[in-house]
Amino acid sequence: MRVVVALGGNALLQRGQVPDAHSQLQNIQAAARALAPLVDEHQVVITHGNGPQVGVLAMESAADPRLTKSYPFDALGAMTQGLIGYWILQSMGNQRPYRQFASIINQTLVDAADPAFADPTKFVGEVYPEAEAKAMAAKNGWQVKADGEHWRRVVPSPKPQEVIETQLIDHLLDESIIVVCAGGGGVPVMRTQTGDLLGVEAVIDKDLSAALLASRLQADRLLVLTDVPHVVAHYGTEAARPIRHTTPAEMRALDLPAGSMRPKVEAVCRFVEHGGKGKAAAIGTLDAAVDLLRGEAGTYVTAELS
Amino acid sequence: MRVVVALGGNALLQRGQVPDAHSQLQNIQAAARALAPLVDEHQVVITHGNGPQVGVLAMESAADPRLTKSYPFDALGAMTQGLIGYWILQSMGNQRPYRQFASIINQTLVDAADPAFADPTKFVGEVYPEAEAKAMAAKNGWQVKADGEHWRRVVPSPKPQEVIETQLIDHLLDESIIVVCAGGGGVPVMRTQTGDLLGVEAVIDKDLSAALLASRLQADRLLVLTDVPHVVAHYGTEAARPIRHTTPAEMRALDLPAGSMRPKVEAVCRFVEHGGKGKAAAIGTLDAAVDLLRGEAGTYVTAELS
Repeated sequence: MRVVVALGGNALLQRGQVPDAHSQLQNIQAAARALAPLVDEHQVVITHGNGPQVGVLAMESAADPRLTKSYPFDALGAMTQGLIGYWILQSMGNQRPYRQFASIINQTLVDAADPAFADPTKFVGEVYPEAEAKAMAAKNGWQVKADGEHWRRVVPSPKPQEVIETQLIDHLLDESIIVVCAGGGGVPVMRTQTGDLLGVEAVIDKDLSAALLASRLQADRLLVLTDVPHVVAHYGTEAARPIRHTTPAEMRALDLPAGSMRPKVEAVCRFVEHGGKGKAAAIGTLDAAVDLLRGEAGTYVTAELS
Repeated sequence: MRVVVALGGNALLQRGQVPDAHSQLQNIQAAARALAPLVDEHQVVITHGNGPQVGVLAMESAADPRLTKSYPFDALGAMTQGLIGYWILQSMGNQRPYRQFASIINQTLVDAADPAFADPTKFVGEVYPEAEAKAMAAKNGWQVKADGEHWRRVVPSPKPQEVIETQLIDHLLDESIIVVCAGGGGVPVMRTQTGDLLGVEAVIDKDLSAALLASRLQADRLLVLTDVPHVVAHYGTEAARPIRHTTPAEMRALDLPAGSMRPKVEAVCRFVEHGGKGKAAAIGTLDAAVDLLRGEAGTYVTAELS
């Protein structure tokens, strides 16, 4: 089978952990042990998030007295692809030294007319008091918004339209090479009027990019790995129950609270809806990756319940 | 022909330029215009330096109050591979949209017993007064040394032994895919006693890595691009003269001053000595890349003068 894996942020950095290099590498080494059995039997693409990492780099760049202007998010995203792509490449390679891995830089096309550009909503980096946030915004050309009682920088999160390197990834998989790509959803680029690709100041949802890539690669399975074992219906109420096997229609009828689960559910629904019969997606924990693939753990989504 | 190109630091950032993202992207777009004709006719690998970029990231990481410990040089190097690899991928792709490019993260093996680890000599990052340098060293676990009248951080620069992803690069070239890799000489790694790869606190000379890669790929040509049109014999004296066509033996007999030209000369000599008859290497400017390949510009090095 051809499998696209979306590694959740917790696989890289656990809640409350200091973003030191050493801690992240240890987390990724544990993730590699969990994923290694998959690459023995399947064509595998590993994608990953970059939220905390890109946040750290954005703060460092904004504070750097050597720069006239802090680095834009396409450049910062590319840096996190290098960093996390290296850690995954090395950790997976140590688990399976006889296999070939390719950790590639990848660009993801977004539409310059995407409504996200007019109304940035994705919070990045640290929280500030209102006055300080506005001063940082004036100095660095940021947009800032209230996030609860504090203020934070916001950037647009447009929908991914195309993974530019899809053909390369497809070719590598055909050759049994395991591919690490689409980190942080891919480096956001748009087309200029002359047809050139150019980076944009945006972040892309990594689960939606993974779903797009899985569809375009005609993958058989999409695994969205996170820190909860199932999607939960009626979350936070007495009627709460884990969802085991479901369809996109049932998933879309759930009234999920805003938060990180919504894009994951949207991603698995899109992949299954696009692919139809024979395709399946799952949401669950990293440690259950092998069972998720067989539908024996997590929330398993297929076009029909059979 | 199969050609390995080593882009000099000036292709990314010119002397005295502020390391803003915008300036570097503009420089790389100009480099891509100069290199584009090569990829029309040849199998091409593009490698690049990362000195100023890794220096900036090291300073930012050392100043980051969110971190317990600044990032090690393997992680910083991987970040620059992502950043610069993205810019080259995009700029080359815009020049030749109908061609396929792969910008990959690459690890370069060094020997844990390399004498460079006992005596670090490569200056990185900014200069400090002695007392401040020593305080930074104590805080961050750095080694520092006098660089003229100021003090700077030093890191080991061990010799590259093997480009871990050589087989992947070879395969991509066979498929007419242009490869961007070995940025900053590659992410430095060594083998642990169990045989695992593990990052090390070091930097690797990018020209020596390019030469090693060119040899292992059985490349026909190695182009070392810099900001001078030729290697100059008797540099700085009245007898100064540009070297046009020469051999490794003649090059090694030159009494070159210490500085950035020495590793370039060492790199081209190693490649030609290793490859023998039919192989050629050249040192010259980026704008002359096409002519360098034909031996019509720069310093052209072959095993014999014929």
